[in-house]
Amino acid sequence: MATTDQDDQLVTPWEVTAASQKGVDYDKLIKKFGSTKIEDSLIERIARLTGKPANHLMRRGIIFSHRDVGLILDAYEKGKPFFLYTGRGPSSEAMHLGHLIPFVFTKYLQDVFDVPLVIQMTDDEKFLWKDMSVEEARRLASENAKDIIAFGFDKEKTFIFSDMDYIGSSPDFYKTILRVEKCVTVNQVKGIFGFNDSDCIGKISFPAIQAAPSFSCSFPQIFGGKKDIACLIPCAIDQDPYFRMTRDVAPRLGYPKPALLHSTFLPALQGAMTKMSASEASTSIYLTDSAEDIRDKINKYAYSGGQSTVEEHRRVGGNVDVDVSYQYLTFFLEDDEKLAKIEKDYSSGAMLTGDLKKELISVVQQVVAEHQQRRQQVTEQMVQEFMTPRKLKYSY
Amino acid sequence: MATTDQDDQLVTPWEVTAASQKGVDYDKLIKKFGSTKIEDSLIERIARLTGKPANHLMRRGIIFSHRDVGLILDAYEKGKPFFLYTGRGPSSEAMHLGHLIPFVFTKYLQDVFDVPLVIQMTDDEKFLWKDMSVEEARRLASENAKDIIAFGFDKEKTFIFSDMDYIGSSPDFYKTILRVEKCVTVNQVKGIFGFNDSDCIGKISFPAIQAAPSFSCSFPQIFGGKKDIACLIPCAIDQDPYFRMTRDVAPRLGYPKPALLHSTFLPALQGAMTKMSASEASTSIYLTDSAEDIRDKINKYAYSGGQSTVEEHRRVGGNVDVDVSYQYLTFFLEDDEKLAKIEKDYSSGAMLTGDLKKELISVVQQVVAEHQQRRQQVTEQMVQEFMTPRKLKYSY
Repeated sequence: MATTDQDDQLVTPWEVTAASQKGVDYDKLIKKFGSTKIEDSLIERIARLTGKPANHLMRRGIIFSHRDVGLILDAYEKGKPFFLYTGRGPSSEAMHLGHLIPFVFTKYLQDVFDVPLVIQMTDDEKFLWKDMSVEEARRLASENAKDIIAFGFDKEKTFIFSDMDYIGSSPDFYKTILRVEKCVTVNQVKGIFGFNDSDCIGKISFPAIQAAPSFSCSFPQIFGGKKDIACLIPCAIDQDPYFRMTRDVAPRLGYPKPALLHSTFLPALQGAMTKMSASEASTSIYLTDSAEDIRDKINKYAYSGGQSTVEEHRRVGGNVDVDVSYQYLTFFLEDDEKLAKIEKDYSSGAMLTGDLKKELISVVQQVVAEHQQRRQQVTEQMVQEFMTPRKLKYSY
Repeated sequence: MATTDQDDQLVTPWEVTAASQKGVDYDKLIKKFGSTKIEDSLIERIARLTGKPANHLMRRGIIFSHRDVGLILDAYEKGKPFFLYTGRGPSSEAMHLGHLIPFVFTKYLQDVFDVPLVIQMTDDEKFLWKDMSVEEARRLASENAKDIIAFGFDKEKTFIFSDMDYIGSSPDFYKTILRVEKCVTVNQVKGIFGFNDSDCIGKISFPAIQAAPSFSCSFPQIFGGKKDIACLIPCAIDQDPYFRMTRDVAPRLGYPKPALLHSTFLPALQGAMTKMSASEASTSIYLTDSAEDIRDKINKYAYSGGQSTVEEHRRVGGNVDVDVSYQYLTFFLEDDEKLAKIEKDYSSGAMLTGDLKKELISVVQQVVAEHQQRRQQVTEQMVQEFMTPRKLKYSY
């Protein structure tokens, strides 16, 4: 996991690099991580069970891999409860487009399955990993929570928590963390995460803190002390190591293994060799960017699969496999027909890079503007409410 | 620290063995740990400043070593506040005589200095180290708290806390733990505590949890958010590694280094080669033992410095340096004159081992009976009150 593997791609919770402009080879990653590719039959089953059309992120293979989702659907079919768990490391004020994806997908899951959702803000992790004070990490957790609330989650169904605050207000959460800590050795976290003896002791034990919300006993106020409510975790594939570890310890603790749905990464503007990164401004479109920022960044940075001259482009056509603007449209343009037409026209050379970028600029400007509008309406009071440990609308 | 050293004695938080029946060579330990021997002048200064006679445990060298106590006394002289911090690992229901010593001394300190005291029950540590459930460790914390309350601490000046509960109810405590965790590497805790890669990740980060109560910012309800109140830690010398680490990180966090007062160990009944241990019943007199238990254990097990026949004993005399009964009297018989007479008579052979043991039996029976009487009066309600995070009688 922690070292670049033979096929020259590296995917860890802290770093993602691919071997080619086509981005990470996700089939290889599935084989390496031992997860399961999402087949059409699974997507159809979800659509059938929920009575709603499958989300475009699933249909387009952006949600591409899973673990044990079948078991969650079996339980759902029998009317048994489950809950969703996802998270965010609040490392900067400005979330970017890449951060939006797992949340948009999580919101879809909450809407169609009507289940509780817990969202962990790992402010403790960011404090330990970054040159940042406790107070700043905690503040960013609340700032990022505003963005997350703006994605449209239902307050009656959603608990957002800062680790610093929730560990400090829930003995049950801390006890679950302790149970996990007791099951995992230093050797194991070194193997899984690539830690070494120069790392601080906080990093070494942090994986238990990300594991613990997978277990319903961490949230007695929501699940009434039940410790056997199944958990489904939508997350980017780089978080899988945490949950492989979690699934490994679950049976020893008598808890159900969490199921997972993995998303691919939103490529950096410069191309799919790496993912969009909040700490490198030129790779990212932030949710705080103005319409002009978005236009300028896409025009200036978005890696093009087009040809070097208009004449050649018209003749050979563009390469959608490496074109960042096209890739972004698969994430953000929900209209299948329109996307198919763009793919066709760009590949044939009928559509030029400038026009493709123009299309993307308009789509992203709308996504970001709508987000900014919703975020403006998020008050401190709402953050407080979402982040207060409490019963949700479900009873157990 | 973690391996037997050249002089064949081993002192760690988990194991104590000495090279001879005279017990641990504490002068060597002072040199090794780099602490400071307590001189008569320090004892006199404490008596003078507090206007009370020095505690017999100090006068007799049972409290034998310190770090920076002079700075605490300087501050006290100038009317500056400080607080006391000590702790207990609740590994069994029955505390024994050896556990009583640091608490008896801590109570003396609280009485003469009139300062706040925080007592950490490391139920999380015991869960991580022992074959014990979270629930059992937490239960033992409350059971042991009853014994501690029975030592006579003042509720208005004392906060007793279970780690499991207090970490789970104080974001400020957790934040202090995080700050310490960030300053300490795996290499360091391996060097200090002898941990290795087969240890669980909970053990690796635990030292930060024992360090954090040294800093007043861990208790905003007591110190009103002040982070510069000095701390004095009375503890057995085997806990020093935790606080060497704490003193190392304190300046980097902008907190004052805690000062320390170290006690020797109460020897096992079988002799001073090792200390009294709760997990080995025959080495220990428990605070729950009956008068008959105490009589039988001392008569049967207490290692004697006497000679093998009465005739030889009368002629040669007994050896108080290795005689466990005499050693125990130095801990529990406060009357200096009486103790001096016993030492004289036993050394000369005028007093036989049987008579010495009889003396000890009566002293220990009284100590334990009085404790049991006080413990009977400790209610669940009182435990609850002592363990509730709250302001104490001091203002800052």
